[in-house]
Amino acid sequence: MEISGKPSFKPEMTLNRIQALTDGIFAIAMTLLVLSIDMPEKDLSLSGTPLHKFLLNQLDQFYIYAMSFFLLAVFWIIGHRQSRYFKRTDNKHLWINILILMFVCLVPYSSSLVSDFGDDWMANLFFNTNMFIIALLYWINWIYGTKHKRLIDENLDCSVISISGIKSKVFLMVSMLAIILSLIVPPYAGFSYLLLILFYNLKRIYNKK
Amino acid sequence: MEISGKPSFKPEMTLNRIQALTDGIFAIAMTLLVLSIDMPEKDLSLSGTPLHKFLLNQLDQFYIYAMSFFLLAVFWIIGHRQSRYFKRTDNKHLWINILILMFVCLVPYSSSLVSDFGDDWMANLFFNTNMFIIALLYWINWIYGTKHKRLIDENLDCSVISISGIKSKVFLMVSMLAIILSLIVPPYAGFSYLLLILFYNLKRIYNKK
Amino acid sequence: MEISGKPSFKPEMTLNRIQALTDGIFAIAMTLLVLSIDMPEKDLSLSGTPLHKFLLNQLDQFYIYAMSFFLLAVFWIIGHRQSRYFKRTDNKHLWINILILMFVCLVPYSSSLVSDFGDDWMANLFFNTNMFIIALLYWINWIYGTKHKRLIDENLDCSVISISGIKSKVFLMVSMLAIILSLIVPPYAGFSYLLLILFYNLKRIYNKK
Amino acid sequence: MEISGKPSFKPEMTLNRIQALTDGIFAIAMTLLVLSIDMPEKDLSLSGTPLHKFLLNQLDQFYIYAMSFFLLAVFWIIGHRQSRYFKRTDNKHLWINILILMFVCLVPYSSSLVSDFGDDWMANLFFNTNMFIIALLYWINWIYGTKHKRLIDENLDCSVISISGIKSKVFLMVSMLAIILSLIVPPYAGFSYLLLILFYNLKRIYNKK
Repeated sequence: MEISGKPSFKPEMTLNRIQALTDGIFAIAMTLLVLSIDMPEKDLSLSGTPLHKFLLNQLDQFYIYAMSFFLLAVFWIIGHRQSRYFKRTDNKHLWINILILMFVCLVPYSSSLVSDFGDDWMANLFFNTNMFIIALLYWINWIYGTKHKRLIDENLDCSVISISGIKSKVFLMVSMLAIILSLIVPPYAGFSYLLLILFYNLKRIYNKK
Repeated sequence: MEISGKPSFKPEMTLNRIQALTDGIFAIAMTLLVLSIDMPEKDLSLSGTPLHKFLLNQLDQFYIYAMSFFLLAVFWIIGHRQSRYFKRTDNKHLWINILILMFVCLVPYSSSLVSDFGDDWMANLFFNTNMFIIALLYWINWIYGTKHKRLIDENLDCSVISISGIKSKVFLMVSMLAIILSLIVPPYAGFSYLLLILFYNLKRIYNKK
Repeated sequence: MEISGKPSFKPEMTLNRIQALTDGIFAIAMTLLVLSIDMPEKDLSLSGTPLHKFLLNQLDQFYIYAMSFFLLAVFWIIGHRQSRYFKRTDNKHLWINILILMFVCLVPYSSSLVSDFGDDWMANLFFNTNMFIIALLYWINWIYGTKHKRLIDENLDCSVISISGIKSKVFLMVSMLAIILSLIVPPYAGFSYLLLILFYNLKRIYNKK
Repeated sequence: MEISGKPSFKPEMTLNRIQALTDGIFAIAMTLLVLSIDMPEKDLSLSGTPLHKFLLNQLDQFYIYAMSFFLLAVFWIIGHRQSRYFKRTDNKHLWINILILMFVCLVPYSSSLVSDFGDDWMANLFFNTNMFIIALLYWINWIYGTKHKRLIDENLDCSVISISGIKSKVFLMVSMLAIILSLIVPPYAGFSYLLLILFYNLKRIYNKK
């Protein structure tokens, strides 16, 4: 795909910079999540509510914060695990990654939405669809990169390729479940992500045998 | 340009740190774009508007978000492509890059403006002029760096130099078109950036032949 | 723990990216601290308060900013010192670090809370518990990594291991003191962190002998 | 200063991570500057003010933004130039740098203050003192690091040392002038930074000869 006449510049350079942008965006998106936890008004004491009551009432906002942080961390790990195998990059791979980042940057918004409107089906649907799309894009990224060993190490074992794709596939299914639950029991849809912990450890137990 | 007596420090070090600053600023500017999407008020349900109606009304804000993200990504790629060829740096090159970053950091503001006042010619003019200036500065960066092969690899083929400058030149023209459209049909000015996708793929088709 | 058949990818790569994410998150959390200092209203002059009086009244907010920044810097140094010894990583180590980052990202919130409600026991308790948890997690990180020299250099002297763990242990005790003081004399609880400066220099004096 | 028995870890690692934190914080502080430019209210059109009039009235806010960005860029360059010479680090050097970052993170606040209260002596004094302290700390950093060639390359020529310290000394004097002007002609105090451009180019002209 290289134009002849071009001097050889190292392809890792491009991979490194995609990773730098990715790490930067994940770091900021994760930190901005905290803005979705409401700060008490300064005249709180005037309204007669003590601060500890206010914070107790906000327990579910802290839960949303922790869950969103956890999910972004899982995506960061999925992306990192994939990128360890990539030896090359091309234009499509680059744009899949930018699309991923576009939806990662949307997470603080989705998280705010579900933090403020936890009982609303739309807020939950929005949040879970956001997660689903990121999982889908990571899955596409892996399928695209490994097909005909396009962008990965040629010596990579096929069994490794299929095992490594499992994580994003599991996430896909779990977020699909969360989407369905959003429509039936909105405030409990998020619990489906607990399955991630179960499934990811199942895989580890299986590998150890 | 090096003062004699100075110990040799590696010029890549400076290039690396400009890139680190650039990647950091792009990552933050891209993430801050999400703040230009309005959050619904917490007492939304009191006003009788269901959340899904609110979000539907905001579709154009999501579109502005996606477009701004896409344009910043294109600039990031243009900058990255250029920097792969640079072997040296000097004071002027450094300051061109800082000027670029100054206008990149302004994008979340421009994007907010066009997100809130999409029908206003001034908001669109502001946004598109911002894009035009960034494209212009990237073009100046490339002209400056490649003239007499000042900062680039001496063995670089002249045809590569001219091809590599095309991307920012195309962006220049497209954003100029967007500026003109801002004055005539403000809300549709942004569509001119769709031409980028067309032109950039034209180039790829041409290269493949 | 490596699955046979996997091509060797460098473990430092994972360590490097955890560090990149960590540095990014610390940088942002530190910068967001400034948002907890209240800006004067634009119509301040209308209320007859001159700006210098307003800023003087805010002296304790500046103090909270400086203290939070200092504490985050201490954590960053503790984390950096630990990571210098780590040669490997595994899943548990990765998740301990993500948990650390989750509580680091919460610091701008805790800091805002104590900045707005400095006299309230709950605000101080929240802030100091946040600090305590981060210190605890760094201590767990060190215990986990050094046990049976799991993740560190095998040749590392045992005395170095025990000395290097002291910093987080000291922080643990100091933040525990701060938690107790939060319940007795809320506005003065933060002063216990001054002990850190004393203890850390005691250690240096001891090392020099 | 190394404890015997410690395995050799590379001192550049520490320098690299200080630089990563520094680049991250500068990138974020620079990007947050944009938040000090007021967004027009959404019901602006109701008040009869067209958007272009609103933006024209805000010209000085854009000027403050550009000036603050420029000053942070100058500091970033000063810090980068210094760090190129540093081969080692120690605890004091680390803490001088953290102190620098603490005042860099304060710049978006100072900038907001001067952006909202440009005519007030206190706002200008605050902003310019902030700049003065950063310049002072960079100067201390250089003095500390170069004294007895403590942290720098031993072969570094003395003339280079003194020349390299000039940039922060010039900044010190210019910001001192800005502080004095804040007390006499507040809204024009910022213009003293234009002297930086003059002085820094004087130095270049001098070097060329």
